Amino acid sequence: MIKPVRIALDAMGGDHGPDMIVPGAARALERRPDMEFIFFGDEALIRPHLDACPPLAAVSAVRHTTVAVRMDDKPSQALRAGRRASSMWLAIEAVKKNQADVAVSAGNTGALMAMAKTCLRTMPNIDRPAIAAIWPTIRGRTIVLDVGASIGADAQHLVDLAIMGCAMARIVLGVERPSVGLLNIGVEEIKGIEEVKTASRLLRQAALPNLDYFGFVEGGDIGKGTVDVVVTEGFAGNIALKTAEGTANQMAQYLREELGRDLMSKIGYLFARRAFAALKAKMDPRNVNGGVLLGLEGVVIKSHGGSDILGTAVAIEIGYTIARHELLGRIRATLALSHEGQSQPSKAPAAGETEAARSSS
Amino acid sequence: MIKPVRIALDAMGGDHGPDMIVPGAARALERRPDMEFIFFGDEALIRPHLDACPPLAAVSAVRHTTVAVRMDDKPSQALRAGRRASSMWLAIEAVKKNQADVAVSAGNTGALMAMAKTCLRTMPNIDRPAIAAIWPTIRGRTIVLDVGASIGADAQHLVDLAIMGCAMARIVLGVERPSVGLLNIGVEEIKGIEEVKTASRLLRQAALPNLDYFGFVEGGDIGKGTVDVVVTEGFAGNIALKTAEGTANQMAQYLREELGRDLMSKIGYLFARRAFAALKAKMDPRNVNGGVLLGLEGVVIKSHGGSDILGTAVAIEIGYTIARHELLGRIRATLALSHEGQSQPSKAPAAGETEAARSSS
Repeated sequence: MIKPVRIALDAMGGDHGPDMIVPGAARALERRPDMEFIFFGDEALIRPHLDACPPLAAVSAVRHTTVAVRMDDKPSQALRAGRRASSMWLAIEAVKKNQADVAVSAGNTGALMAMAKTCLRTMPNIDRPAIAAIWPTIRGRTIVLDVGASIGADAQHLVDLAIMGCAMARIVLGVERPSVGLLNIGVEEIKGIEEVKTASRLLRQAALPNLDYFGFVEGGDIGKGTVDVVVTEGFAGNIALKTAEGTANQMAQYLREELGRDLMSKIGYLFARRAFAALKAKMDPRNVNGGVLLGLEGVVIKSHGGSDILGTAVAIEIGYTIARHELLGRIRATLALSHEGQSQPSKAPAAGETEAARSSS
Repeated sequence: MIKPVRIALDAMGGDHGPDMIVPGAARALERRPDMEFIFFGDEALIRPHLDACPPLAAVSAVRHTTVAVRMDDKPSQALRAGRRASSMWLAIEAVKKNQADVAVSAGNTGALMAMAKTCLRTMPNIDRPAIAAIWPTIRGRTIVLDVGASIGADAQHLVDLAIMGCAMARIVLGVERPSVGLLNIGVEEIKGIEEVKTASRLLRQAALPNLDYFGFVEGGDIGKGTVDVVVTEGFAGNIALKTAEGTANQMAQYLREELGRDLMSKIGYLFARRAFAALKAKMDPRNVNGGVLLGLEGVVIKSHGGSDILGTAVAIEIGYTIARHELLGRIRATLALSHEGQSQPSKAPAAGETEAARSSS
């Protein structure tokens, strides 16, 4: 029998704590029966939800703690007060101790990043973790990273993001050789930040297996699904993500307002309600819940703070998929390949020089 | 009688040239009769459109040139080939020579920026121009700048953007004391780029008249209309703008697909077609066409390259409004105030020190 995927859950994270987290796990288990859970948090609050769901209780353990990171704790505060004691830390630590394959938390992002980095450490050659989002597009889904883990990125960090995002796309999107675009403000080679231009050159030169470098993409390309993976540093990535969510909300509100304005429109709404339900499902942010923290020696999933049962289940399922397909191993292998190429820089320039010498002779 | 606003038009700019630009001017003139036009470009192509519209011909002059900047010219190419000769340059130069109050071009952005900067020069203390966009929101409209004129910004440049955007908001939105937000990736004081944090402190300290500093805003706040003016550097601003457009297109496509999928939905669409027409109008990018180049010693409006007659008319009207209300004078006055305050930095810190000394004593 296939080994179950072990999920460590920060039961106290998010706006609703165990009331959403535990039933969310039950929902995920219905779709993926090969899972086991460890819930970290206040047992008095967790246990009643488990008792209500015997199939979940049968594959779950509870580790009691009353320490919880608050949604408004600063990362430094959270680390000071919650290290080695909070439900968030303990869930992450379970991954480190190989008691779990993945940790899922709806707790505050800054604290989760800081704790994950402190507890799990980053991979060799990766100095900062990133958060990857799964973005719904016209053609399907696109992985966008970094959406806010860190600000600014040098060229090599962007290349690393491309590699990590690509490994994730292979697993989550099921694409053998994902296409990768660098987010920029124009497609002409002349435009953009120096780091982005250098990263573009590096990605082209590297010609990595399993990574199809597309070139620059613009903000409008994300929703079009022009590429499987969009790479950017965390400031622009976060602004893109939040702006897209804001625009979707804005259009939904316009639509509601206009459809409620007169009788004919209301009748039209009734006739077309299947279409509106389908539209709503497509735009439902719960269906793409779950930011993946990449670059760490362990898998951590950030669920949205306001997640309900469905959103929590989706985040857990992403964690399941990633652990099941051994994302970390894939990332490690490609990163090693890339940094190996980089540590022997004589190769590529030498070829270039030869060519230049040849053409000038 | 009130003096007409004089508009210099690059008739050869954009994907359609005079075929859209001249009828666009005619359309704008219907709504704002106190305008005069100078068309720069190929007279053989311009004249027939003028002949077709006597009211426009009566207030228009044509300056013939066959040199035109191409949509794919790099800025340096455009300057080399088109300086002092192209329709784009001549339209801008008409503003410099006070033959026109504003120049409007649908030509390529990079070339327009480079020519405007070279020909008009930037205002004192402003090293780089910015492009301001008018963004439709749930509450009305918001000015967002910079949406791609230049990459990166130090704190003082962000403050200057706030001042220029605010002066524009007073005129375009008709708000006496516009609220201003700095685009950031979190609302907590701890987050974000150092320059953005410093700019926030400067704006709070400056306590400028006619500028109500709100604090940080996130990507999602733009569409909500949380503030009248959103300030950011050009890379993030351009990505936000393009991502929002992309998301709006994506939703429109989902909606079309779903409404066409079955008979009931098609019937629903027929009943609610007023609502859909209203939605379409609200999302119509032509109604917010016209990026305003700010920070120059003259007003230049960038119309979208693909603009049709309506889009062109809207861009011309923005130019009209800005020239009519003497935007430049307003910007100059507030900038002077701000940089004056900055050149006497002893004032504010001294007050702060006194307070600190008082509280520690």
